[in-house]
Amino acid sequence: MAGNSFGTLFRFTTFGESHGPAIGCVVDGVPPRVPLAVPDIQHWLDRRRPGQSKFTTQRQEPDSVEILSGVFEGQTTGAPIGLLIRNVDQRSKDYGAIKDQYRPGHADYAYDAKYGIRDYRGGGRASARETALRVAAGAIARKVLRGVTIRGAMIQMGADRIERAAWRWDVVEQNPFWCPDQAAALRWEEQLGAIRKAGSSIGAVIEVVAEGVPAGWGEPVYDKLDADLAKAMMSINAVKGVEIGAGFEAATLSGEANADEMRMVGGQPAFLSNQAGGILGGISTGQPIVVRFAVKPTSSILTPRRSIDRFGQEVEVTTKGRHDPCVGIRAVPVGEAMLAVVLADHYLRQAALQAGAGAALSE
Amino acid sequence: MAGNSFGTLFRFTTFGESHGPAIGCVVDGVPPRVPLAVPDIQHWLDRRRPGQSKFTTQRQEPDSVEILSGVFEGQTTGAPIGLLIRNVDQRSKDYGAIKDQYRPGHADYAYDAKYGIRDYRGGGRASARETALRVAAGAIARKVLRGVTIRGAMIQMGADRIERAAWRWDVVEQNPFWCPDQAAALRWEEQLGAIRKAGSSIGAVIEVVAEGVPAGWGEPVYDKLDADLAKAMMSINAVKGVEIGAGFEAATLSGEANADEMRMVGGQPAFLSNQAGGILGGISTGQPIVVRFAVKPTSSILTPRRSIDRFGQEVEVTTKGRHDPCVGIRAVPVGEAMLAVVLADHYLRQAALQAGAGAALSE
Amino acid sequence: MAGNSFGTLFRFTTFGESHGPAIGCVVDGVPPRVPLAVPDIQHWLDRRRPGQSKFTTQRQEPDSVEILSGVFEGQTTGAPIGLLIRNVDQRSKDYGAIKDQYRPGHADYAYDAKYGIRDYRGGGRASARETALRVAAGAIARKVLRGVTIRGAMIQMGADRIERAAWRWDVVEQNPFWCPDQAAALRWEEQLGAIRKAGSSIGAVIEVVAEGVPAGWGEPVYDKLDADLAKAMMSINAVKGVEIGAGFEAATLSGEANADEMRMVGGQPAFLSNQAGGILGGISTGQPIVVRFAVKPTSSILTPRRSIDRFGQEVEVTTKGRHDPCVGIRAVPVGEAMLAVVLADHYLRQAALQAGAGAALSE
Amino acid sequence: MAGNSFGTLFRFTTFGESHGPAIGCVVDGVPPRVPLAVPDIQHWLDRRRPGQSKFTTQRQEPDSVEILSGVFEGQTTGAPIGLLIRNVDQRSKDYGAIKDQYRPGHADYAYDAKYGIRDYRGGGRASARETALRVAAGAIARKVLRGVTIRGAMIQMGADRIERAAWRWDVVEQNPFWCPDQAAALRWEEQLGAIRKAGSSIGAVIEVVAEGVPAGWGEPVYDKLDADLAKAMMSINAVKGVEIGAGFEAATLSGEANADEMRMVGGQPAFLSNQAGGILGGISTGQPIVVRFAVKPTSSILTPRRSIDRFGQEVEVTTKGRHDPCVGIRAVPVGEAMLAVVLADHYLRQAALQAGAGAALSE
Repeated sequence: MAGNSFGTLFRFTTFGESHGPAIGCVVDGVPPRVPLAVPDIQHWLDRRRPGQSKFTTQRQEPDSVEILSGVFEGQTTGAPIGLLIRNVDQRSKDYGAIKDQYRPGHADYAYDAKYGIRDYRGGGRASARETALRVAAGAIARKVLRGVTIRGAMIQMGADRIERAAWRWDVVEQNPFWCPDQAAALRWEEQLGAIRKAGSSIGAVIEVVAEGVPAGWGEPVYDKLDADLAKAMMSINAVKGVEIGAGFEAATLSGEANADEMRMVGGQPAFLSNQAGGILGGISTGQPIVVRFAVKPTSSILTPRRSIDRFGQEVEVTTKGRHDPCVGIRAVPVGEAMLAVVLADHYLRQAALQAGAGAALSE
Repeated sequence: MAGNSFGTLFRFTTFGESHGPAIGCVVDGVPPRVPLAVPDIQHWLDRRRPGQSKFTTQRQEPDSVEILSGVFEGQTTGAPIGLLIRNVDQRSKDYGAIKDQYRPGHADYAYDAKYGIRDYRGGGRASARETALRVAAGAIARKVLRGVTIRGAMIQMGADRIERAAWRWDVVEQNPFWCPDQAAALRWEEQLGAIRKAGSSIGAVIEVVAEGVPAGWGEPVYDKLDADLAKAMMSINAVKGVEIGAGFEAATLSGEANADEMRMVGGQPAFLSNQAGGILGGISTGQPIVVRFAVKPTSSILTPRRSIDRFGQEVEVTTKGRHDPCVGIRAVPVGEAMLAVVLADHYLRQAALQAGAGAALSE
Repeated sequence: MAGNSFGTLFRFTTFGESHGPAIGCVVDGVPPRVPLAVPDIQHWLDRRRPGQSKFTTQRQEPDSVEILSGVFEGQTTGAPIGLLIRNVDQRSKDYGAIKDQYRPGHADYAYDAKYGIRDYRGGGRASARETALRVAAGAIARKVLRGVTIRGAMIQMGADRIERAAWRWDVVEQNPFWCPDQAAALRWEEQLGAIRKAGSSIGAVIEVVAEGVPAGWGEPVYDKLDADLAKAMMSINAVKGVEIGAGFEAATLSGEANADEMRMVGGQPAFLSNQAGGILGGISTGQPIVVRFAVKPTSSILTPRRSIDRFGQEVEVTTKGRHDPCVGIRAVPVGEAMLAVVLADHYLRQAALQAGAGAALSE
Repeated sequence: MAGNSFGTLFRFTTFGESHGPAIGCVVDGVPPRVPLAVPDIQHWLDRRRPGQSKFTTQRQEPDSVEILSGVFEGQTTGAPIGLLIRNVDQRSKDYGAIKDQYRPGHADYAYDAKYGIRDYRGGGRASARETALRVAAGAIARKVLRGVTIRGAMIQMGADRIERAAWRWDVVEQNPFWCPDQAAALRWEEQLGAIRKAGSSIGAVIEVVAEGVPAGWGEPVYDKLDADLAKAMMSINAVKGVEIGAGFEAATLSGEANADEMRMVGGQPAFLSNQAGGILGGISTGQPIVVRFAVKPTSSILTPRRSIDRFGQEVEVTTKGRHDPCVGIRAVPVGEAMLAVVLADHYLRQAALQAGAGAALSE
């Protein structure tokens, strides 16, 4: 069971390499009669697209998506939705030099150990190019999820974290970092400029938030909503850590400080804090769902690094291709998309459960 | 698709509530002719068993496991292995008082929102009682995984972290915290004694490590080894964060500091550091696999907390049952078990891939 | 991925051997708040139970089922339902003689080839004993399916087929064959008596019918309702053929004769015939769903048969254990149960689809 | 969980409608280093392609397949294989007349009941066009299966069955029916010519056979090899029945006549007959695997038929498009392909089991 599908009821399967002719995606399980057209997907692809500032790789990919099936007269039909994006700017010659070398921090060595063969051009299947399809699937998930708002932001670059008090969602769209803190964005601009010029790279932390999710989504005990979210985020290239709500900070808290108290507010149950990040027992509580993940620095850097090649020879590796000084930036739309697909899946799973239960009740 | 199964080729399914007659587990996909007997499983169950020190719940459960199928004359047959553990010390009367109340930080409210019905006795399906079955499945996974050593330790209690330089594996077995740092264990004994007497609780961080995993396990791109590990750990009760290798620390690093360099050592590829935690591109590299997770403090505390009941009335809740002042302690064997089951699954998945590829090679 | 689970949203997993201590089942995905108690399941188990006439094996198994989880105060909770049936009358000594021999027509040889080890007592995992759990899962599926009537009958024994014009459902309960044609039942009584005395056996054809299934269940294109039914029936021990509606007869028909015409009757769409057996394009049409399957004769017979043993020696095999002269009889309740579980699964799958679509419509 | 994927370890997912821009397929789980190029797939697509004789629909589709991923320098890489086939000859105007009508025997009514929306052009997702992708996936499965020969034949048209004694595999390629009996082929040519001219249609029975499958493939108890084959065949458009080995004939046999005896032949286990069709207990026995399935007559016929439209009006329907007088003909390559994909899946599943078991043995 190879791992190129994600989700259960809302499920997508992707294919394609960085420097092959195209990448593509089949989104299965989309309910019928959901309005859908190319711009609904292209909008989110454009946000992820590289080459939009000097802080992301200069590879120029229009990422024009084609809907091949599953939509008829502007609505989904319930049939699988086939999506295709042709690769345009492959520039394979950049990669010939490292064809037999294992770049430190990359998947080269692991792929060879696993498969005994590797499409070395631009990282092949291990390339972040694949994340475009996550964004496309996420765009469809957003259409399925009505009343849910999904947003993300980069909240830390290197060791420099934003001030949470300064968080403004409108600022996120106004700087190349998706940073919600204007002062931090200005600092990062300077810092990352220097890192880029030095041919180095830096890590980041992303936070994605879903508002409007009702209580009741998530399947105990192994498909908990937070378990599926952890898998979703950790499956994104370069991610090394995931946390929900208070996250690792929860380890330092007392039971009194950690448990969110409840009161009735306006006749509705309300929580007085959100240490839980909107999930208890693996099930959504109705509070905003808050997920953070850490992105390591790109390993494609100009400084020569010690490594070996596939013949067991020791080598020095320098990666000369076009790369991201802070790949965390482009992870923001990808994290949002993964949050959307997990929620769409659990929305449908809960719908099935409730439909069955409702029937029983009226017995 | 309800969520009570875990894994693909090595797959277990569990059932049972905290205060029902029994809990049980079906482990499917265990290869035939693996030596297996009750003590192989009981050994690990005994490590997780509550009531072994004053720092874990005083509920007395022998957790005697019965093998109902799948083993014949001391060996697995390839048929599913049914396991049963009878509940003994349910003491339901402790829970009547909170039958209609939503305990802050517990899953009570979320379960009611999801199912419209709840077995409130001892947390029902949401109880940590279910983790005994993870440990049982993990014990079988360890038998499948030859040459792999899986160990765990508690490395932080509250804000107090161990000294990594002081790490000694033999110390782990000599204190009630599975703590590898003798000095830290002594400090914790005092601290947790005070917390316990105050009827409060505290969080913790656990680290689990697998040594002996060859390069090549893990399935790009959505079933990456680290993605499956993140799901596995986050699915454990009370876990709020998961990280691999450098984890969240990776966000603060430069590309030079983060990427593990390679050299040939004794004719074999060797890494000069392990920031990656043994996984690159979602595939094991042959280095030790290092996973950490954060466990929140138990929400069952003696201090009255504000909440509501299922009738929408505001209430004060005090949990009087037997509970763990630091539930992270018991999470150590559970985390080890989840590491084992994920590895057993990916071992078999890689075996299938290699068998197919090998056939092709000789064509 | 071992094959001991069946279904997607309504999914059960079984374990247990013919002569082990117990057999059991986990039914996952049952919606909450469905009324359920032991008699709801025991009723159907009693129908399948062997030893009720001289025409089924004389093994005496009370098949008393215990519900271990997932039910609270008379209702399902949405948690997995654990079921346990202790084996009582194993009489293992019957089987020692054939421990190393491959009984012709049995799975002995194939199991050894696959697993390299075999629990030879009473057929082990290959025994029809496992079908009790299908019936138990089917009983729960019936509770989930409201308004659907599922019935079955044996319509052919050997070459002797019933008269369809003589079909009376009330007759089915009045003879040991579940035969709907009184005259046929009388003939079979005589015929099967002779076969039993001769230590021989005979095959049969079973028909199971579901009435009250609305149009719209089934998932194109690979999980068509009829495809899942074909798998369900063919997975029953000794089944060698499955057909829907006109089945193999459809091969002989012209397009005019085969396609069911439609008219409006009482303001509702109505079909004028049911060659399709209630399924078109893999989706239910609202007509009765009609499935037939062929059951081969038991291979456990008294006549010595040529075979080999596991050491490659040629042997003569006679099976002396207690067996069924026409195992098709006991396949009737099993076929009904498999029809029920497939329908319950597709009911929930369609509910998920409709819930998602409904949401979209109101956009 | 929508149903557009098939298989577990060897798994393909398809998309595309009859009259959309393209159809496509993702084949996941193909082991690495299997030699693969476009002609390996195109060869089998060409066999299925319509318009090659006057007995199949005159729609002209070149069915040129493009490999978009997963193959590098002539070998599979272990990454998912994306396949794309552009639709060329859609001729949508043929279908406008029946846009709102439910054609008797078609899936029109069922699709509308399920989805509430339907791509009516050429049957949309319900079209047999989708079977081209089964053939493509089957072509890759054949490359994975070394040493296995898979062949098929049409053995009955209407009520006219071939003489089994006259079976010659070389004849199969020499007539437009894939008929192995020369005399039958001549009869059918005349009969089907008349049926075609009359604008009518006729059903058929197909037999597919796999030789060279070793003993041991198939997963008891719910994923039996025959159960998966039954699902595979029944999922093909227009199939109404499936049987293995003696099939429905087994119902008429005595235990003595049905059970295949064994002897040692040339030092190897050998069966003296093959009533079982190569499968016992759901596991292959090493004998040829024999599967038959019944294909109903196309419902697209020139004779006006009574039906209704989506507005509840009674109508007469005549289907004027290009169609197959005996769609069973084109089902032969499709049945072969489905046999291949099921076998490739179970080959890999058994490989995983054996790899795990082998490891255990050497312990």
